Amino acid sequence: MSEHSEKLTKTALTPSTHTTPPAKFSHGVKKGNILQVAGQVGFGPAVEGQAPTPVGPELREQTLQTFANVEAILKEGGASWEDAMMLRVYLTDTSHFAEFNEIYNEYFAGLGEAPAARTTVYVGLPAGLLVEIDALAVLG
Amino acid sequence: MSEHSEKLTKTALTPSTHTTPPAKFSHGVKKGNILQVAGQVGFGPAVEGQAPTPVGPELREQTLQTFANVEAILKEGGASWEDAMMLRVYLTDTSHFAEFNEIYNEYFAGLGEAPAARTTVYVGLPAGLLVEIDALAVLG
Amino acid sequence: MSEHSEKLTKTALTPSTHTTPPAKFSHGVKKGNILQVAGQVGFGPAVEGQAPTPVGPELREQTLQTFANVEAILKEGGASWEDAMMLRVYLTDTSHFAEFNEIYNEYFAGLGEAPAARTTVYVGLPAGLLVEIDALAVLG
Repeated sequence: MSEHSEKLTKTALTPSTHTTPPAKFSHGVKKGNILQVAGQVGFGPAVEGQAPTPVGPELREQTLQTFANVEAILKEGGASWEDAMMLRVYLTDTSHFAEFNEIYNEYFAGLGEAPAARTTVYVGLPAGLLVEIDALAVLG
Repeated sequence: MSEHSEKLTKTALTPSTHTTPPAKFSHGVKKGNILQVAGQVGFGPAVEGQAPTPVGPELREQTLQTFANVEAILKEGGASWEDAMMLRVYLTDTSHFAEFNEIYNEYFAGLGEAPAARTTVYVGLPAGLLVEIDALAVLG
Repeated sequence: MSEHSEKLTKTALTPSTHTTPPAKFSHGVKKGNILQVAGQVGFGPAVEGQAPTPVGPELREQTLQTFANVEAILKEGGASWEDAMMLRVYLTDTSHFAEFNEIYNEYFAGLGEAPAARTTVYVGLPAGLLVEIDALAVLG
């Protein structure tokens, strides 16, 4: 098949703003025209020798930082929000949904006419984290 | 690479049965031969000027409507259940699993020999919703 | 488009170690260069006429068996861990995260420099199951 006619290479994506992953996985990977962003949370930019910490306790600041962290990985792979096919949003409290949607709509107000699909569910996250987002992008 | 030889366009998929999304995302998107369906729930067909509401309180009716909503988006993108690679099912109660599987098996009884992979987990959803399903399809 | 120039076939992946799925879905499917592994748990190898059962009650044994089950499906489709783009890990208890990461790091110690992205969330699973993992792979 045409997709198999050339050997594709999988590349790990590690923006300079990100700490080394705490386990043997990547913040993102790219292979062919598929780019997968791992679950991102509201950790601030990496500081050498320090464990990553959330930018603050509130949903708004964590969400905006999470968006920035997802975007950094998309960019590292030569992609942008316009290439995002799916965002999976994990919230920890159903009562956060309305506020999350407000922040989300503000953030993406300038996006083109074909924004990503999105799924939002309520799960558990490590203490102090209110939101996690992962993303699938198709380049080209 | 061959996948990059032509510029791909991302297209939002909005079946006429669906209300405008409550936030800046799409019910589904298609780019190249990848089609992603956003998380669907048991909302009935869109009625102008009314907020979407579940078709009923029971798992069976919500599940069948959710399947219909996923299928409408697949069709809008020129795909069918046969193209679905992965269904992610979110239930809100582990005690619903057996009944869900019955409904699922009935619904897909006529599907060809290569139905989709599936993951089912138990999460939180907004009040009144018992099931959410999203889907990844590969056309071709 | 080049991706559409040949008809792609979706193939169900059923390793001999796996029981028949309890519902109308596949343990994995492959179409073109996309391979999707359904949610796997710590069930031991299939025994004719017996319902699948977890290999044991502990996180370590269930996690290692789950990895083996995911890998069996990747192999059935001609892929390996090196082709995995995304692992989604579902744990049932936030207190399992540290131990899970230890097991994960040991298991993947020999993996190349571009391991998969990963998302870990805490959800509900059927009684007795502590971990579930699904995977998306891109071959080529």
